[in-house]
Amino acid sequence: MLRSCAARLRTLGSVRGPPGGRRLPGSEPRPALRSFSSEEVILRDYSVPNPSWNKDLRLLFDQFMKKCEDGSWKRLPSYKRIPAEKIQDFKTHLLDPKLMKEEQMSQTQLFTRSFDDGLGFEYVMFYSDVEKRMVCLFQGGPYLEGPPGFVHGGAIATMIDTTVGMCALMAGGVVVTANLNINYKRPIPLCSAVMINSQLDKVEGRKFFVSCNVQSVDEKTLYSEATNAEVEANLGFVSGSSWLQIPNFQHQDSLPLRDDQHRSA
Amino acid sequence: MLRSCAARLRTLGSVRGPPGGRRLPGSEPRPALRSFSSEEVILRDYSVPNPSWNKDLRLLFDQFMKKCEDGSWKRLPSYKRIPAEKIQDFKTHLLDPKLMKEEQMSQTQLFTRSFDDGLGFEYVMFYSDVEKRMVCLFQGGPYLEGPPGFVHGGAIATMIDTTVGMCALMAGGVVVTANLNINYKRPIPLCSAVMINSQLDKVEGRKFFVSCNVQSVDEKTLYSEATNAEVEANLGFVSGSSWLQIPNFQHQDSLPLRDDQHRSA
Repeated sequence: MLRSCAARLRTLGSVRGPPGGRRLPGSEPRPALRSFSSEEVILRDYSVPNPSWNKDLRLLFDQFMKKCEDGSWKRLPSYKRIPAEKIQDFKTHLLDPKLMKEEQMSQTQLFTRSFDDGLGFEYVMFYSDVEKRMVCLFQGGPYLEGPPGFVHGGAIATMIDTTVGMCALMAGGVVVTANLNINYKRPIPLCSAVMINSQLDKVEGRKFFVSCNVQSVDEKTLYSEATNAEVEANLGFVSGSSWLQIPNFQHQDSLPLRDDQHRSA
Repeated sequence: MLRSCAARLRTLGSVRGPPGGRRLPGSEPRPALRSFSSEEVILRDYSVPNPSWNKDLRLLFDQFMKKCEDGSWKRLPSYKRIPAEKIQDFKTHLLDPKLMKEEQMSQTQLFTRSFDDGLGFEYVMFYSDVEKRMVCLFQGGPYLEGPPGFVHGGAIATMIDTTVGMCALMAGGVVVTANLNINYKRPIPLCSAVMINSQLDKVEGRKFFVSCNVQSVDEKTLYSEATNAEVEANLGFVSGSSWLQIPNFQHQDSLPLRDDQHRSA
């Protein structure tokens, strides 16, 4: 599926800076904005703490921000929408105007950023280029409910997909997820913080193989509740693997890429 | 993961009728309500057409409603929340009050019903007990965006998970998804209708094996765009398989079940 691309383009846009050269929030946490104009909503970086973040999530955020200080890790900003100039190539290549009208396009929001603060997906991603590793700190709000009190498996799949997609993007270029294989081990309580670890394992031609697991931030609680320790995935709530590939666009070279991006053969 | 249970309990509740014996919408489509009290929101059946449904989705809905007339298929109603009396056993067995407070519980909504009409997951499920087959008619709204103009892969995974979960529930009892393996073949345009077909393949002890594919409702477009026809899944946008198992509750017998439910050994 191509669905990872949007999140990645949103991040690419942010890496280059938003349209108009407006200054983005820096790496320091800041209080969440409470009232936004539509432009502010589009330009707002959602990958920083807001009042809905629990103590665990804030603590982890601070720890990873510390790791960013020497440049070995990077925090990835993210936005609700892709800047218009980034979207153009995708529209040209992928969209059939019979299926998606211009006015419908104007309503769209990135799935993982389409809830109000605290109700849905609260997350921030950090990337280590040396380790080819993406860590997503995630807290699922009350609108992500599956079984009573727990995060819906589809919401977990969404965050795994987003994390492995971003990992492959940062490591290799614009990719699409072709396969997602998730083993669910234990339910994740709503409003709790978890850590999603994603690692690029290998690249074969156009395919990127990325592994992933979801772990509690409270290791004590986590390990004591693991029941099937023969598989490494059991150490986490969820394990998964995924392979992604570069989409076969007709005019691939015109797709937007980061300056430092490369594509495998 | 346990996340399928909530949706199933919501349906179980609806099969028996909502609390207080209030009459539910019948099988006939009705105009979407525009203003709801909180009780109405909880009791409202979301598995009927609303003004956001496109022509394809309405047509398919009518076709399946026709199939329901002889009793071979059933439409499954669905709700935002589980009636309180259904939730009690789950809370007793699964919830740690340190992790999820009572007031947070009151905010929760089923993930797949947590968007306003037309913005997120629009869907209805139909089940054939003879065929052990669940069909979900789905239209992804603009808040489910992944790549520009297309449904996020996580949203697709969510609907696949929901559909295979409901299929196993109707066939066998309260289950949890243990594995979800999805091959993404082609992107699904936002605001288009697709058909998610789910089939119970086999039951091995506590495990239910369910296969699933996502097909365009426009077969012509679908088949002409299929590229890897050696796998049956290629006929659809997405294929997936899943196995689910009965959760290992300590006091399993006290869990709410439909009258006609059974559990495998």
